[in-house]
Amino acid sequence: MKVIALLSGGIDSTTLLYHLLAKKHKVIAVSFNYGQRHKKELEYAKKVCQKLKVEQKVVNLSSLKELLHGSALTTPKVEVPAGHYTDATMKATVVPNRNMIFLSIAGGYAVAEKADMLAIAVHAGDHPIYPDCRPQFIESFLKALNLGNYHQVKVYAPYLNKTKTEIVQEGLKLGIDYEKETWSCYVGAKRPCGKCGTCVEREEALALAKRGR
Amino acid sequence: MKVIALLSGGIDSTTLLYHLLAKKHKVIAVSFNYGQRHKKELEYAKKVCQKLKVEQKVVNLSSLKELLHGSALTTPKVEVPAGHYTDATMKATVVPNRNMIFLSIAGGYAVAEKADMLAIAVHAGDHPIYPDCRPQFIESFLKALNLGNYHQVKVYAPYLNKTKTEIVQEGLKLGIDYEKETWSCYVGAKRPCGKCGTCVEREEALALAKRGR
Repeated sequence: MKVIALLSGGIDSTTLLYHLLAKKHKVIAVSFNYGQRHKKELEYAKKVCQKLKVEQKVVNLSSLKELLHGSALTTPKVEVPAGHYTDATMKATVVPNRNMIFLSIAGGYAVAEKADMLAIAVHAGDHPIYPDCRPQFIESFLKALNLGNYHQVKVYAPYLNKTKTEIVQEGLKLGIDYEKETWSCYVGAKRPCGKCGTCVEREEALALAKRGR
Repeated sequence: MKVIALLSGGIDSTTLLYHLLAKKHKVIAVSFNYGQRHKKELEYAKKVCQKLKVEQKVVNLSSLKELLHGSALTTPKVEVPAGHYTDATMKATVVPNRNMIFLSIAGGYAVAEKADMLAIAVHAGDHPIYPDCRPQFIESFLKALNLGNYHQVKVYAPYLNKTKTEIVQEGLKLGIDYEKETWSCYVGAKRPCGKCGTCVEREEALALAKRGR
């Protein structure tokens, strides 16, 4: 099947890309530059597409940075909170309507390409803080997408109810070298800060997955 | 109330802007450059905002032109069809998922601004050809938007079941000079072509409204 897959350059969407290729789908990856603090993730997304010989479109949404203000990821003066991903303080990293914007653009592209599916790597660990990663949102988005277009597309979100550890376990089996092939840290420095929510979650998932839990 | 209003520079959204100001709302207009053939409409949108002293954000989505291909509005080699707006040939002017992309971005902005409403000028004449202008789509989009965000927004689409003639009748009462203040033609030449669907519809609505029908 022809699949348009969202690819940030992080653990989840990189695993999804490997997953789709293992299933022999014809994949086009779509990545977004929305003025995010951790633009570094895009270098990783590009490299993994080159390695896997996957066509990639990078959409320049940098003019959205001004509009989607207030988040630690788009507004430099808002600090990236330290701590666990599920802490209430992590709400500072919510970017207004981000997934709907990404899915709408990728959905339009899927319609133009007459693709069968739109793939996104949202997972259970995202649900507490990010409302646009919850099953109800994904289902509702899909309904609107198909009401708004002649060509009908399915949404493929195989990790919707999985944990990040389960995603990493799958990825390790698929041969992903997470250290080399993915980027998570929100702070956007040369090296991962080790303290922000996504760094903490990343280390936890990698450790747990390696211990086989 | 604080309202984020989509403004293309055409008859419908310009009337909506006047309508919102007449109701004393605090309005921010959002316009999109998506590589449309008739970019000229954006000049009209800008001028009317200057005249009415309305803050306007112009979002640069020109990188979407490549993705949302196949439409006469984004792909130069696809000709703009002549004829009536409701003709099946007008399907060539459908841009994949356009309204969902625009509404998602404006919706994200509305959330960031903690606005009360998101306003869009879709009308009954759009329904036959453009699925993303139909009431079911608008309703479904709104549900997804509010599931995906903490701040809740209403969608205001007062023309959803009105004809373009009724819109123009309202606009004439509000003092709009449609010839000077709006642009419709899809072809994107210096002067309106007079033959494309939106030119035909425009002339028809202006003539009927002036005859008071």
